[in-house]
Amino acid sequence: MAATPTNPSTDSGKTPVTVLGLGAMGRALAGAFLKAGHPTTVWNRSEHKADELVARGAVRAGSVAEAVAASPLIVVCVVDYEVSHRILEPVGADLAGRVLVNLTSDTPVRSRRAAEWAAGHGVEYLDGAIMVPTPVIGTPEATVLYSGSRRAFDTYEETLKALGGKAPFLGTDHGVAAVYDLAMLSFFYSGMAGLAHAFTLAGEEGVPATDLAPFLDVITGIFPPIAKGMADDLVGGRLDGAGEGNIVMEAAGIAHIVEASRDRGVNTDVLDALKALMDRTIAAGHGESEFVRVTEAMRGAYA
Amino acid sequence: MAATPTNPSTDSGKTPVTVLGLGAMGRALAGAFLKAGHPTTVWNRSEHKADELVARGAVRAGSVAEAVAASPLIVVCVVDYEVSHRILEPVGADLAGRVLVNLTSDTPVRSRRAAEWAAGHGVEYLDGAIMVPTPVIGTPEATVLYSGSRRAFDTYEETLKALGGKAPFLGTDHGVAAVYDLAMLSFFYSGMAGLAHAFTLAGEEGVPATDLAPFLDVITGIFPPIAKGMADDLVGGRLDGAGEGNIVMEAAGIAHIVEASRDRGVNTDVLDALKALMDRTIAAGHGESEFVRVTEAMRGAYA
Ligand SMILES: NC(=O)c1ccc[n+]([C@@H]2O[C@H](COP(=O)([O-])OP(=O)(O)OC[C@H]3O[C@@H](n4cnc5c(N)ncnc54)[C@H](OP(=O)(O)O)[C@@H]3O)[C@@H](O)[C@H]2O)c1
Ligand SMILES: NC(=O)c1ccc[n+]([C@@H]2O[C@H](COP(=O)([O-])OP(=O)(O)OC[C@H]3O[C@@H](n4cnc5c(N)ncnc54)[C@H](OP(=O)(O)O)[C@@H]3O)[C@@H](O)[C@H]2O)c1
Repeated sequence: MAATPTNPSTDSGKTPVTVLGLGAMGRALAGAFLKAGHPTTVWNRSEHKADELVARGAVRAGSVAEAVAASPLIVVCVVDYEVSHRILEPVGADLAGRVLVNLTSDTPVRSRRAAEWAAGHGVEYLDGAIMVPTPVIGTPEATVLYSGSRRAFDTYEETLKALGGKAPFLGTDHGVAAVYDLAMLSFFYSGMAGLAHAFTLAGEEGVPATDLAPFLDVITGIFPPIAKGMADDLVGGRLDGAGEGNIVMEAAGIAHIVEASRDRGVNTDVLDALKALMDRTIAAGHGESEFVRVTEAMRGAYA
Repeated sequence: MAATPTNPSTDSGKTPVTVLGLGAMGRALAGAFLKAGHPTTVWNRSEHKADELVARGAVRAGSVAEAVAASPLIVVCVVDYEVSHRILEPVGADLAGRVLVNLTSDTPVRSRRAAEWAAGHGVEYLDGAIMVPTPVIGTPEATVLYSGSRRAFDTYEETLKALGGKAPFLGTDHGVAAVYDLAMLSFFYSGMAGLAHAFTLAGEEGVPATDLAPFLDVITGIFPPIAKGMADDLVGGRLDGAGEGNIVMEAAGIAHIVEASRDRGVNTDVLDALKALMDRTIAAGHGESEFVRVTEAMRGAYA
């Protein structure tokens, strides 16, 4: 029974906004709203984290309920959804008819659970995922992904762009922003493991990291076309790619890295785990496939 | 007792070259030499793989010894160093005074062992690592890394550029080209594991790979500055980076990916392996460090 969100404005013509949670990210978000001229109310468990924002013009709320009452648009950003739920649960009734945007990072399952809770309380709910570090918040380049209530997004799209100029709406499934977030981060962290391995192996072989670094750009440069090709193959149902016999050759290449790493005492657990998935793919009869076939092993098809 | 390599030329003014090994890559190499106008002699265990090259003007050698005798510059590219050694060992005496360039991929240890063998036979030896697939061979953009005999490189640099315009000489340690090769590939394959994970998780959540792919470019784009920053920190001895408390937060982020992946039956072994290294780094008291500190866990410091 959510009321249609309106876009009430103060004299400044800007939507009043409340930010719950003033960790490093919450402070950046509140700061960006202030900078964009929004009347901004803030609340945090540890009160002192609001001091600098109050000095810049934010209003300190004495309680979560007071903070919620102050604005039609409530943004929450805390450590995880367990905490955001603990903060919001007592003020469900106060939130009714308002728009809640949860920018806390967590799993799609928890986003969907939060959406059910919000629906049960008449709260218009938008889920978001912040893809940039705090210093980038408030710039046109900052990416924040949104999913859930289309109506909430359409109503406050311009307001939310104060946080980041790149604000795609990914769908009405509240969990989908978290899906993109976690998928992107799985690529990110795997790549970070690779950078750490590259520098460690080179270092143990006496090659300074700064000598190696420019060469790593060669690898970075080939990821976008490879990602595009893999995506096209997956969506086109071409699980073997062009079928040019890559997985066997690639597994042999990884075996060389593993051997050279062990020669120098460099940990190979990450690459061992990948190689095991590839070996399973080969054992299942797909050694002539391209790498895209490894996604089948990853989803458990050859377990 | 290596003789100084000279740069004898035929009427074409181009150095005669011999290519041993005509797998997919050997054929691409021989084809590039032919295209650049070099008198090219070829040999392969399975003879028929020379047919197309012979039709384009290559000379087929009846034996390895005959192939070696035909040119001052011998390029070998076979499946691994065990095979290249098996091919070259019987013709050690014929190779004396010539330049041998081994473009087979393998470990630094095996490159150095091959270099010792070559030195014992008076062979001027250059080791190389091919960083591009066969269709790119022979173009200005193709990268082939070299290390070992500086004299051999200086003598034949122009000739070798027929294979790839980007031909850096990385040092006189014969193993160093392989070190760069394997370090670059460790970043590459870890990143590939990440792409596979990203597409698999998204797919199991109903997000088409082609919807996700453009967003992965956001991640690709941040690797070059991160790699540069990590390298500067490592060389500057700043193992904590700027010390902004990242590893704990990042490990929490990985825990979310792992949980969401398990919710959908997506294999998490690669990220589990990375997280174990990070947990070890945190347990050793470095949770407040930036990710660069994980290189310490990777080299076994917190085992
Ligand atoms: N920082 C980044 O660069 C970045 C980038 C992308 C996404 N994110 C995401 O943004 C979210 C917040 O990150 P952050 O960097 O702001 O984290 P943070 O600095 O650690 O702040 C954590 C916030 O959670 C609150 N909190 C924790 N436990 C609580 C409890 N039991 N009750 C009430 N409040 C509690 C803290 O309140 P107290 O101040 O009282 O402890 C604080 O406001 C996370 O989901 C993170 O993944 C962060
Ligand atoms: N292909 C690429 O895209 C690529 C890219 C970068 C680096 N490389 C590296 O280049 C090297 C060659 O790769 P490739 O693609 O050409 O492999 P390939 O097509 O599998 O060819 C293997 C070669 O090794 C020979 N060989 C194998 N066992 C032998 C034996 N016991 N005695 C004599 N010859 C033997 C084969 O001869 P037969 O024809 O008689 O079997 C053939 O010439 C590898 O080290 C690879 O890692 C390849």
